[in-house]
Amino acid sequence: MGVNSNRAEDFSSQDTTLRITTESVMPSMEIHKVCLPPKKTTLQKLKQRLGEIFFPDDPLHRFKNRTWCKKLLLGLQFLFPIFQWGPEYSLKLLRSDIISGLTIASLAIPQGISYAKLANLPPIVGLYSSFVPPLIYSILGSSRHLGVGPVSIASLVMGSMLSETVSPHDEPILYLKLAFTATFFAGLFQASLGFLRLGFVIDFLSKATLVGFMAGAAVIVSLQQLKGLLGIVHFTTKMQFIPVISSVFKHRDELPGVSIDIKAYCTYFYFAYDGSSLIPCMVLKSWIFTELTQSMKRPKLFWVSAAAPLTSVILSTLLVFCLKLKSHKISVIGYLPKGLNPPSANMLSFSGPDLALAIKTGIVTGILSLTEGIAVGRTFAALKNYQVDGNKEMMAIGLMNMAGSCSSCYVTTGSFSRSAVNYNAGAQTAVSNIIMSTAVLVTLLFLMPLFYYTPNVILGAIIITAVIGLIDYQAAYRLWKVDKLDFLACACSFFGVLFISVPLGLGIAVVVSVFKILLHVTRPNTLIMGNIRGTNTYQCLGRYKEASRVPSFLILAIESPIYFANSTYLQERILRWIREEEDWIKANNEGTLKCVILDMTAVTAIDTSGIDLVRELRKMLEKRSFQLVLANPVGSVMEKLHQSKTLDSFGLNGIYLTVGEAVADISALWKSQP
Amino acid sequence: MGVNSNRAEDFSSQDTTLRITTESVMPSMEIHKVCLPPKKTTLQKLKQRLGEIFFPDDPLHRFKNRTWCKKLLLGLQFLFPIFQWGPEYSLKLLRSDIISGLTIASLAIPQGISYAKLANLPPIVGLYSSFVPPLIYSILGSSRHLGVGPVSIASLVMGSMLSETVSPHDEPILYLKLAFTATFFAGLFQASLGFLRLGFVIDFLSKATLVGFMAGAAVIVSLQQLKGLLGIVHFTTKMQFIPVISSVFKHRDELPGVSIDIKAYCTYFYFAYDGSSLIPCMVLKSWIFTELTQSMKRPKLFWVSAAAPLTSVILSTLLVFCLKLKSHKISVIGYLPKGLNPPSANMLSFSGPDLALAIKTGIVTGILSLTEGIAVGRTFAALKNYQVDGNKEMMAIGLMNMAGSCSSCYVTTGSFSRSAVNYNAGAQTAVSNIIMSTAVLVTLLFLMPLFYYTPNVILGAIIITAVIGLIDYQAAYRLWKVDKLDFLACACSFFGVLFISVPLGLGIAVVVSVFKILLHVTRPNTLIMGNIRGTNTYQCLGRYKEASRVPSFLILAIESPIYFANSTYLQERILRWIREEEDWIKANNEGTLKCVILDMTAVTAIDTSGIDLVRELRKMLEKRSFQLVLANPVGSVMEKLHQSKTLDSFGLNGIYLTVGEAVADISALWKSQP
Repeated sequence: MGVNSNRAEDFSSQDTTLRITTESVMPSMEIHKVCLPPKKTTLQKLKQRLGEIFFPDDPLHRFKNRTWCKKLLLGLQFLFPIFQWGPEYSLKLLRSDIISGLTIASLAIPQGISYAKLANLPPIVGLYSSFVPPLIYSILGSSRHLGVGPVSIASLVMGSMLSETVSPHDEPILYLKLAFTATFFAGLFQASLGFLRLGFVIDFLSKATLVGFMAGAAVIVSLQQLKGLLGIVHFTTKMQFIPVISSVFKHRDELPGVSIDIKAYCTYFYFAYDGSSLIPCMVLKSWIFTELTQSMKRPKLFWVSAAAPLTSVILSTLLVFCLKLKSHKISVIGYLPKGLNPPSANMLSFSGPDLALAIKTGIVTGILSLTEGIAVGRTFAALKNYQVDGNKEMMAIGLMNMAGSCSSCYVTTGSFSRSAVNYNAGAQTAVSNIIMSTAVLVTLLFLMPLFYYTPNVILGAIIITAVIGLIDYQAAYRLWKVDKLDFLACACSFFGVLFISVPLGLGIAVVVSVFKILLHVTRPNTLIMGNIRGTNTYQCLGRYKEASRVPSFLILAIESPIYFANSTYLQERILRWIREEEDWIKANNEGTLKCVILDMTAVTAIDTSGIDLVRELRKMLEKRSFQLVLANPVGSVMEKLHQSKTLDSFGLNGIYLTVGEAVADISALWKSQP
Repeated sequence: MGVNSNRAEDFSSQDTTLRITTESVMPSMEIHKVCLPPKKTTLQKLKQRLGEIFFPDDPLHRFKNRTWCKKLLLGLQFLFPIFQWGPEYSLKLLRSDIISGLTIASLAIPQGISYAKLANLPPIVGLYSSFVPPLIYSILGSSRHLGVGPVSIASLVMGSMLSETVSPHDEPILYLKLAFTATFFAGLFQASLGFLRLGFVIDFLSKATLVGFMAGAAVIVSLQQLKGLLGIVHFTTKMQFIPVISSVFKHRDELPGVSIDIKAYCTYFYFAYDGSSLIPCMVLKSWIFTELTQSMKRPKLFWVSAAAPLTSVILSTLLVFCLKLKSHKISVIGYLPKGLNPPSANMLSFSGPDLALAIKTGIVTGILSLTEGIAVGRTFAALKNYQVDGNKEMMAIGLMNMAGSCSSCYVTTGSFSRSAVNYNAGAQTAVSNIIMSTAVLVTLLFLMPLFYYTPNVILGAIIITAVIGLIDYQAAYRLWKVDKLDFLACACSFFGVLFISVPLGLGIAVVVSVFKILLHVTRPNTLIMGNIRGTNTYQCLGRYKEASRVPSFLILAIESPIYFANSTYLQERILRWIREEEDWIKANNEGTLKCVILDMTAVTAIDTSGIDLVRELRKMLEKRSFQLVLANPVGSVMEKLHQSKTLDSFGLNGIYLTVGEAVADISALWKSQP
């Protein structure tokens, strides 16, 4: 049963001969036929392939075998996750959500103002952005812990990309229009990726790339804050390292002597205050990232760093208010309009010379904010052991940005710092986002005048503290230790962002990452295998001391699909292995080489060039009277060998299920046909 | 010996319990430890890696263990292959080479004139190009059968790329300068690729891409000949399908009525003559490609198609000479200067606005001619069972083009038609190229006036016959049958070349080919495996009917390296497999799932994102009290798991050499610790 009858006949004399032919003692074995995969039409294959590409998670599996009524409810829950947890919402959950919501609000207000400044936008836009998007996310989003709002990276990138073409100081209205238009395109791009189920696009920004990118971005942002900290008026509009540094040196005469002491005082004050929390804060971050699923042992620590920004803002505002008679040179936020988000749909412009810039900025910020939002969502979902659907998250984030662009908000996403605080403060559902929105609403309606005397320098300090935490040198060191090519991608994105530009730096890093994949395919490993004594297992000779050569056989494992990109290399490499094996045999006087076995287990795909390689190799070896045998070709390879009629030329003794069976059967054949 | 002693103790009770735990009868087995690969420093690894990338064929292996004197001789032979076969050259070989050399000369003269016309260059340049480069190749080249000269594809591409910017009729001197400069850069590029051992770059033009490209190029060239055949004066300078066709229709009034009959007569005459050989010629070509290594059974057939061009030229020239009194409207080649190649180094210009165009054209024609030259060289080397060193060939072809650009030659390479004729005429060494050069030399010195009355129309006919043979619809059909994505690359390059442009069409095809590799990595196969009864082999459940599930185990094979590009997908997919397995178990009432085994045999590489996936998966499964086990991780994966300390978290019962050992050992453990 299951045994190829033809083989079984050839094999009748095997048991007695095998121990003589091969030197190691090998248990007797049946020979199994290598099957083709079940037949499928091109259409069926295409359907399966597309299913794997676009629906790997089988999102409709919940709908199978349900009544219509149940299906409708599930569909509603699928589109609006709020219906999933809404019915089970309790007062106890609400209490946790209120506490966490208020906590992230205290972080959101200073962060919103600071990040808007980072994007060269009016501070009030940052607060608007902490109001509408979280509300929409709480209805559409599937993560329970994501704290939604503006984030440093997207703000920085938007600021840097837009201000290289349009000056936010000379043309503030045009700049604002471009920012809203870019936000709209970011949202459109994100929602389309989700809707078209192309979420895997963001996977190409690997973690290694992001580590380098974030560090580079953090350095750039910190340098940009030199303007505010040092009070230089004619600062460069460029974002790269060299122009900024040279700008600081060129304008060092401008440094205002009067207020610098007070500024420095404010800054030091903030750092001194937050400095106490700086170290625990970084520990907390690295701890969350590295020890994802360990239960929380120090949940009380986050308060210090969560409360730091708001406390600093209040204290420094009071300080400046008290000192205002002495010095008018300290730059403060100034007047902020009271009231809710004004509509901004009329500010979106889909024509004009800057449309391309808005689209480009939208796509880059969209991709970056998606990457952060989804990574953060997945991180906290893994902590609480629930699943976040990437494509649905993309649609939620995209729709919230599209809505945001019509209500005076700029790009928002799930923020790492806000989500970490949210999680630690005990958030249970997306209601904490609603609570935060409400707190921001109250601020917008009643508390705006209080921020008049908030010094800009404290916002710079908040930004610097936030972004310095993004420099994860430990992660970079880990990359270097484990994978040098990942470290290269990381270094490329770091230096690319620092010295060239954000999109180009990211582009270079993606190219390096893809190049890594291609390099692995272009130059795959080929290993020479030996039999592990007393078993039918064959393993790499260099790695396993228990493995020994099988006389007259050369067993090679190819560790990659065979493609156009490596078929020439593999041919040369295999011929070199044969040459070296013959040299070795000659030197050791060990009989002759008669058969080359290719272990195809790891050859997971083949294309037409690969098939040509197999055919050509077979013919070349035949000319030199070696037999070529394939062991364990996978389904798709077997199918293509069959379709190209290559299988026929191999015949019965050319394809085996395992290396062990091949060695046993061929040895037996040699013995029976001397 | 070779058995992990810790395991051996755990394993003492295995033999009696195993048959009870797992339902299928499984032979007893030893448990082997999974080894780390031998330790290497980063420098050693880098050295090995670079060795594999740049010296996969170990070109210096001949120099090992030799005396200094021998090494010098080998070095000389390495640089100038003529020293390899030169000393053994005999009169018998010379006779064969003279016959084949004269045969390819009879092909080279009309081809040279025609292809130069295809590149919009003066016809004499085509003859010059058949004189100097073959001489240089015969000293440097390692192929014995390559017939060197201008080829249709490179001529066409050079003509199309240059004439879109510079008109060859209005600015002939500038055009000629650009052509020589482009040739110089083509040679420089080719020689650098060879010198830097970056030969694998041309592997990225897969056979599938080239099939589509050549067909598209053939259509374009044939359409371009409409100008000559129909005698249209104001023809479009564009090369794409649509402008050419619309140009023909727009200028159909221009068609000269008087001479069209004679032109048609000449054309038909040629086709009628060569038509008899057209079919055998195509059969010959496909036969050579498909039946590479079969011994030659019909070696006499090639004469017909080899002699056709020269005979046609002679007969049509005679015909026009006789008719010249009757009609002066037949366009003829006209006056060709007698004499050897004039030096053209002074015409190379390395500045000015067209330098970028020259470099671009040089790189594209350089890559295409390299691809053809090396593919042809390898094809005939395989027929005679000798090796052609790709990187050395690149240097030879590059140097011959650089020398050619200084002696009034344009891009040359190993031509498929010329090499096939050369091979069939019995060429033995590169001396046949020297003979051909000598024949061309005699023509240049004495026979040029004879070509005065050669009608251009016959050259058009020669070109069309030559390029129509490039349309290999059978190969395209084979691609469709075996590999749909290869066919897509082929179709992209065909339509890209036809409707957009040559470099862009090729670029799209390369992107599609690379995309194919990335798609395979981004969405790898995961298979659910079962035990083949009575063996320790585990195979795909869907493919092998003999395979059956092992109760309490879920065995998954991952068929791809684990990279940033697929780690998210794999996590989702593996969790879905577990979910489906649990559903299946529930439906079939088959106990509980306790252990997930990942067969890592085909996971040939892992990066830091992949390692994160393994860690996270282990923790997620631990939370659901499933055990995660890795079977047979390859050397580099094992090493990275070790370096990232992931190995420690798996402990003793987490990594096994084979799936069989994992199942046996874990079943035994469960039995001993109920």
